[in-house]
Amino acid sequence: MRTLISGGTVVTASERMVAEVLIDGERVVGLVATGTDLADTFAASADRRIDASGCYVIPGGVDAHTHLQSDGQAVPVLDTFETGTRAAAHGGTTTIIDFAQPSPGARMQEGLDRYLAMTDGNCAIDYGFHMNTFEVDGASPKEMDRLVDQGVTSFKMFMAYPDRLYSDDGQILRMMQQSATNGALVMLHAENGHAIDLLRDQAAARGATSPLDHGLSRRALLEAEAVHRAAVLAQVAGAPTYIVHLSSAEALDAVVAARDKGWNVFAETCPQYLFLSLDDLARPDFQGAKYVCSPPLRPAEHQTALWRGLRTDDLAVVATDHCPFCWSQRELGRADFRAMPNGLPGVEHRVELLYEGVVGSPGLTLNRWVELCATNPARIFGLYPRKGTIAPGSDADVVVFDPAAPHVISADTHHMNVDYSVYEGFELHGRVRHVLSRGRLVIEDGEYRGRPGDGAFLRRNLCHELR
Amino acid sequence: MRTLISGGTVVTASERMVAEVLIDGERVVGLVATGTDLADTFAASADRRIDASGCYVIPGGVDAHTHLQSDGQAVPVLDTFETGTRAAAHGGTTTIIDFAQPSPGARMQEGLDRYLAMTDGNCAIDYGFHMNTFEVDGASPKEMDRLVDQGVTSFKMFMAYPDRLYSDDGQILRMMQQSATNGALVMLHAENGHAIDLLRDQAAARGATSPLDHGLSRRALLEAEAVHRAAVLAQVAGAPTYIVHLSSAEALDAVVAARDKGWNVFAETCPQYLFLSLDDLARPDFQGAKYVCSPPLRPAEHQTALWRGLRTDDLAVVATDHCPFCWSQRELGRADFRAMPNGLPGVEHRVELLYEGVVGSPGLTLNRWVELCATNPARIFGLYPRKGTIAPGSDADVVVFDPAAPHVISADTHHMNVDYSVYEGFELHGRVRHVLSRGRLVIEDGEYRGRPGDGAFLRRNLCHELR
Amino acid sequence: MRTLISGGTVVTASERMVAEVLIDGERVVGLVATGTDLADTFAASADRRIDASGCYVIPGGVDAHTHLQSDGQAVPVLDTFETGTRAAAHGGTTTIIDFAQPSPGARMQEGLDRYLAMTDGNCAIDYGFHMNTFEVDGASPKEMDRLVDQGVTSFKMFMAYPDRLYSDDGQILRMMQQSATNGALVMLHAENGHAIDLLRDQAAARGATSPLDHGLSRRALLEAEAVHRAAVLAQVAGAPTYIVHLSSAEALDAVVAARDKGWNVFAETCPQYLFLSLDDLARPDFQGAKYVCSPPLRPAEHQTALWRGLRTDDLAVVATDHCPFCWSQRELGRADFRAMPNGLPGVEHRVELLYEGVVGSPGLTLNRWVELCATNPARIFGLYPRKGTIAPGSDADVVVFDPAAPHVISADTHHMNVDYSVYEGFELHGRVRHVLSRGRLVIEDGEYRGRPGDGAFLRRNLCHELR
Amino acid sequence: MRTLISGGTVVTASERMVAEVLIDGERVVGLVATGTDLADTFAASADRRIDASGCYVIPGGVDAHTHLQSDGQAVPVLDTFETGTRAAAHGGTTTIIDFAQPSPGARMQEGLDRYLAMTDGNCAIDYGFHMNTFEVDGASPKEMDRLVDQGVTSFKMFMAYPDRLYSDDGQILRMMQQSATNGALVMLHAENGHAIDLLRDQAAARGATSPLDHGLSRRALLEAEAVHRAAVLAQVAGAPTYIVHLSSAEALDAVVAARDKGWNVFAETCPQYLFLSLDDLARPDFQGAKYVCSPPLRPAEHQTALWRGLRTDDLAVVATDHCPFCWSQRELGRADFRAMPNGLPGVEHRVELLYEGVVGSPGLTLNRWVELCATNPARIFGLYPRKGTIAPGSDADVVVFDPAAPHVISADTHHMNVDYSVYEGFELHGRVRHVLSRGRLVIEDGEYRGRPGDGAFLRRNLCHELR
Repeated sequence: MRTLISGGTVVTASERMVAEVLIDGERVVGLVATGTDLADTFAASADRRIDASGCYVIPGGVDAHTHLQSDGQAVPVLDTFETGTRAAAHGGTTTIIDFAQPSPGARMQEGLDRYLAMTDGNCAIDYGFHMNTFEVDGASPKEMDRLVDQGVTSFKMFMAYPDRLYSDDGQILRMMQQSATNGALVMLHAENGHAIDLLRDQAAARGATSPLDHGLSRRALLEAEAVHRAAVLAQVAGAPTYIVHLSSAEALDAVVAARDKGWNVFAETCPQYLFLSLDDLARPDFQGAKYVCSPPLRPAEHQTALWRGLRTDDLAVVATDHCPFCWSQRELGRADFRAMPNGLPGVEHRVELLYEGVVGSPGLTLNRWVELCATNPARIFGLYPRKGTIAPGSDADVVVFDPAAPHVISADTHHMNVDYSVYEGFELHGRVRHVLSRGRLVIEDGEYRGRPGDGAFLRRNLCHELR
Repeated sequence: MRTLISGGTVVTASERMVAEVLIDGERVVGLVATGTDLADTFAASADRRIDASGCYVIPGGVDAHTHLQSDGQAVPVLDTFETGTRAAAHGGTTTIIDFAQPSPGARMQEGLDRYLAMTDGNCAIDYGFHMNTFEVDGASPKEMDRLVDQGVTSFKMFMAYPDRLYSDDGQILRMMQQSATNGALVMLHAENGHAIDLLRDQAAARGATSPLDHGLSRRALLEAEAVHRAAVLAQVAGAPTYIVHLSSAEALDAVVAARDKGWNVFAETCPQYLFLSLDDLARPDFQGAKYVCSPPLRPAEHQTALWRGLRTDDLAVVATDHCPFCWSQRELGRADFRAMPNGLPGVEHRVELLYEGVVGSPGLTLNRWVELCATNPARIFGLYPRKGTIAPGSDADVVVFDPAAPHVISADTHHMNVDYSVYEGFELHGRVRHVLSRGRLVIEDGEYRGRPGDGAFLRRNLCHELR
Repeated sequence: MRTLISGGTVVTASERMVAEVLIDGERVVGLVATGTDLADTFAASADRRIDASGCYVIPGGVDAHTHLQSDGQAVPVLDTFETGTRAAAHGGTTTIIDFAQPSPGARMQEGLDRYLAMTDGNCAIDYGFHMNTFEVDGASPKEMDRLVDQGVTSFKMFMAYPDRLYSDDGQILRMMQQSATNGALVMLHAENGHAIDLLRDQAAARGATSPLDHGLSRRALLEAEAVHRAAVLAQVAGAPTYIVHLSSAEALDAVVAARDKGWNVFAETCPQYLFLSLDDLARPDFQGAKYVCSPPLRPAEHQTALWRGLRTDDLAVVATDHCPFCWSQRELGRADFRAMPNGLPGVEHRVELLYEGVVGSPGLTLNRWVELCATNPARIFGLYPRKGTIAPGSDADVVVFDPAAPHVISADTHHMNVDYSVYEGFELHGRVRHVLSRGRLVIEDGEYRGRPGDGAFLRRNLCHELR
Repeated sequence: MRTLISGGTVVTASERMVAEVLIDGERVVGLVATGTDLADTFAASADRRIDASGCYVIPGGVDAHTHLQSDGQAVPVLDTFETGTRAAAHGGTTTIIDFAQPSPGARMQEGLDRYLAMTDGNCAIDYGFHMNTFEVDGASPKEMDRLVDQGVTSFKMFMAYPDRLYSDDGQILRMMQQSATNGALVMLHAENGHAIDLLRDQAAARGATSPLDHGLSRRALLEAEAVHRAAVLAQVAGAPTYIVHLSSAEALDAVVAARDKGWNVFAETCPQYLFLSLDDLARPDFQGAKYVCSPPLRPAEHQTALWRGLRTDDLAVVATDHCPFCWSQRELGRADFRAMPNGLPGVEHRVELLYEGVVGSPGLTLNRWVELCATNPARIFGLYPRKGTIAPGSDADVVVFDPAAPHVISADTHHMNVDYSVYEGFELHGRVRHVLSRGRLVIEDGEYRGRPGDGAFLRRNLCHELR
């Protein structure tokens, strides 16, 4: 099966060119200047020609942070691997990296095995796993090595949640030390759990139990503190580290300070921290409940700092932390935000939302848009250049993006399995038109054409040469 | 004329792939995965096949800072545009940006016209001009606009040398303001001239007249001060700025601080600051004279900081500041370093030297090597994507670099018109094997195959989307 | 003549105690715990007892920055040495340091001689001189030494005003070098003159000629730039330096950065920057004209940063930069702010205004209040411990300050020779009740009891041990 | 009993004057200029005249960090309250603040009661207690309030030693919150215990068990991390905090960064970090064992940074952390540094050692010497102005210090109960000659004249107005 994507402007992390993209089977085989003999030669032999005139042709998005069918929360996450990956495909994301985790008391291998079973045959797009790492003991380092051998090359640890997910600094340092030898990457949920839980319980004790109080009790300074600590531990270990869902200006400052010293600290933010704010948590009639996630949405002025960080590479990745709960699940936290399931839906809109940073005042370049949505997560998580670029030899994960197709986000039309949208009514300039996943046209003019099981498990390499 | 560069590993600022590079006439028309039908089809029609097996295939280098045939110094620079560009080609550089400047009392247009005449028919590779800007008056802003229209889109000003080249901060700010409207870029020699000249003259007055005294009198703090000031002026103007030949850790700190605030400050360093040091200025028997340039070589510990800056994008470009004087010209400064012509030869070895940062402890990635030597200078100076990458539609400026071809730098074998090398005896791991300039094979297995006049004047665009 | 100041709380830069202050002639001879035999013994022999019950007994204020009878402006400053020093005394200031300056073309000695003549027999309180230094030539360093011998130990230079007062960085560095050898202190008006004059003239050219435009055209970043540069020059010279009238958060940041490196950079701010803002420059009906000074008043948020700096010793001194022009003189700038005489009246209210920082939210300690108003300027300018403290052997310059005497500032009641007050209507908590100058009661219950000529010229020592 | 200290130069934190110090009973009643009638009058009635000609008369030292007769270590500390306070007196320290702590499982009140019993009638000089706080539960805040009422106004917590003394960040934050309401001060041993214990055990596991390995395993970065975290927690609580025994440049940087933001973070260093280094831990023949303390001695270059911090008030206090173990106790750690009792003797030499910073290159002022040794600890720990100054009304704790009495430190002559000195052979310029403790002459010409029980328990106030 040969496909020609023709007449578009190909944009990668560093290139921008008018070129034909030649696909043979699951791979890109060539890029050829539009209007040349060679393009004609290929076109003649192609089974399918996709017209990309007026469109950007970009690498399929890589969402490095999703929670589908997660069993780590007391309340079930609504999107299954089937529904969630389909929604991702609609939005131009062709790879997700989700989180496997062991059952209580079990070892990490059990977690991987179980998640492989859960996903097998169900996913619309390719997928990999980070491993949630809760309990570190003497056997953990070698176990880590074995998971790396199986293509699970990143390990998430929690500085928050001392009552359930938390690892102490010695445990984190131990895993970082091992990552310095096996090339894996330790990722951190960076909030000071002990301090935040105190403030949270004090808030509840004085009757401050609303969604807004959730936001106010998780102080940005205590996120920044944890980021700083993570950076120090990584430096002591001689390893890189990766901060998930960075939400605040103060936390970004901690990343900047570390990077200025040449430390390999990478950070991800999410669309919710770029487009939503504490004001949303304060919405009347308990509507703020839709916006409860951790770290929480911050006052709007933080957005400017985060966009600056995206522009200048202090923030390396935009991922979604997709973790959808429906309205009735949110009701669980009406009396007390501590009972509220935490997480926002968003896997479908990341690429389109970030494009607003290109056309709007943040002034991202097209290259940077692609780098943040696809190339950098692929590099950092060992998928590059198979994923994250359009180049001879890469997987044919390609998105045709129409920059002149205004539309409005709505729960009425989105494909995620949740009955509201945190971006309801947002007007977007551009739209994902077609999506190819390993050469297969899974989205065509906005319609899903794939099947469960199209997507395969990705045995990931080590982090691509980091800097 | 069709050329196929076959079997190499193509490396650009962000890609690394095994692919065939297809060239038709002066342009790259396609990149195709090695071993595919399409590669065969093209190969069949090619006039020439260059075997790049075992080699890196990289974009031709862009040296954004050279002084050939300069008439700005009291003493003639030895390389003509003919000899200098030929030496550049030998070293894998296919574009230089030199400095035009008006005759004393004349306007900038006169400078451009004169330099166009000087270069016409003489250059081995493509070339553009920055404009040296000395005297700013009410007519200068409009004159700047007219030069931008002619493809001269960057303007160099001097914070040093109050007795001859200096502009005051108001003049610099005025030109930066204009650059904010016409898209040009103001480049700065950032040293505090008034302060340094005092220290220099005091040194001479007390008999400290050696090459080492030259180095000691130009304090790094006074370079850092000027960088800081340049950044502030640019921010006040709402324009980007570019620091040439940054030499010290303190100056780098000033760039870092500006960039952390999101200011568009770019900086270039040079191989001499990465590989040579104050110890060279202290060589006995007046041998230190060979190493006199401004800013001066610094104590060796600055090198670590500069490599760090290169790795993390705080330094954007490596250029040479090539400005060769022969040994007999150096003799002019024997009695007093103030009479010494300033500048080092180096245009030939930049790409090969920087590769040492890939194989050695600085740990540059291959991508970053290409970005620093070719892509970033092309982007910043309005030549991208025509120069600085290998992609369909780009100029076929291509270097085949053999990473396993150890050799030693020597004045006996180099091609620059100067009777010593500041890198004499340096052992290098890799070597430029072939060089194509707009599709023409100008270097083949290390031999020059081109002719004067192969190179053409480049009307440059505005800076590529900066970040 | 023996005086006993009895029953008050004596506050110095570090002490706070209930004690009797014993004065014999012009000096303090002892401090004795209230209610002891010894106090009684002294009381019995005292000629005068001043009841300070309920009051703070503090060292007389030292205003290190006044312009009385200045001949440096095109328009005459209204306060003479007689009226200005009398107003100072009313406000609890017993020492001023004004600025001597040579006539155009004359040497510094001429300036000192002329100012000594102008002041002789006219001042209500003691006074010293800084020397305004405009033209630095080869003879200047030795001249500086001779002035130091005569008790003029500080030299003010201007980074602003390139058309009249400006020194270039080499001239400033030269004087700083000399100060490193003779122990004097170079003080700087830190604004980037060349850049600001460009912005100023551009503003005027586009018709932005109001008092507010004055404020907007003198950018805080360009103040900060000059502070940074001054710090670097001083560090290169190996000398301390002192920034006059620091006005902005950005400039303070530059001081903080320098001090964090251990550099001896001291800075002064003024009450106008702590209590007034850009909003005052924007007052309608040209009332903003009353508030024109340089650096200009800043947006109100800068005040918080400056108070922070005062609290933590990043700002060392509060002086007034007293330079009064009456309303009719302000009219000169109605058509164009460039014709407006620059400067605010304020010598009378510094001590009382700063006390508002003790009772209000800035939270200064009583000790810090005294340190900023009296002790630090005395230390830095070579008057300590003769001035700036209450201790055996010190000059009997003592203020009895009533912390519970609310009153309102008004031009109707103030003693400065100017027909408005920039603090009109300000409500103050405390009031200067009595003032002794070298043992002489010059203010008694708010009434002036002294005579012109009470004050004497102070031959100042070198800066007190700085840190 | 009236005492006159005559003819000396009185030095306090801000004053320096030639004056007679008049003492009546336990208090200073007056300071009178030498050579005046009043001095004669007092002298006539004095019971005792101490000639201080040629000497500095300074406030008695306050050592805010001692461990006498500590029962917190597995191995007994050798100095009892009797021997330790006598040694302190010899060295010019008239107040110590030691650490009370509850018995295992008991509440804090038990600790105070027990320590009061232990000290009663045994001390040569006045003493107070910090409370070691290990286990924080719901009752702790109110318990803290009650201790504050009893004059125990500072509470030490440990970020190190997770196996025995550690509190987690929530516990620390809770106590800081309470301190924000009751005016107490939380002090922290700032080292990241979990991370350091991992490195320590890894070192031991690979056979790195020497005293030097102790030093290498406790990384300075992990001290700095904890300081940063402590500052953030305090800021979140709205309380000041105090870092004990800060040892490294990196940790100091963390203090500087916090203070630059206006946060009330205070830090203490110790003479061992100013005069000793990692080289001492590396002494052959197990002699390094004498130098084992935590945080450990650092490479010598840290000393420069710490002296800079002392000079510019980023470090507020010098205390000793006196905790003496004899050579045979050190032997316990011969096979493994983890079994070594931690702590250095030093209470006797703090004041004299710091004076070396006045006469030597650190360039402390005399005032700063006094401030660091006496005034600041008195201010911060609620003893000022009773202790820490010489002023009417203060306790007559006075030291006559002879700046021209060179001598050599040796275990042969010191008074601490330990059989070696870590400063053996150090040559000092000045010597404590006489010491008065509340008017009692306890040291006369270097001889001890007091008795156990001279010293009394100090009910401390809240921290003096901090800044």
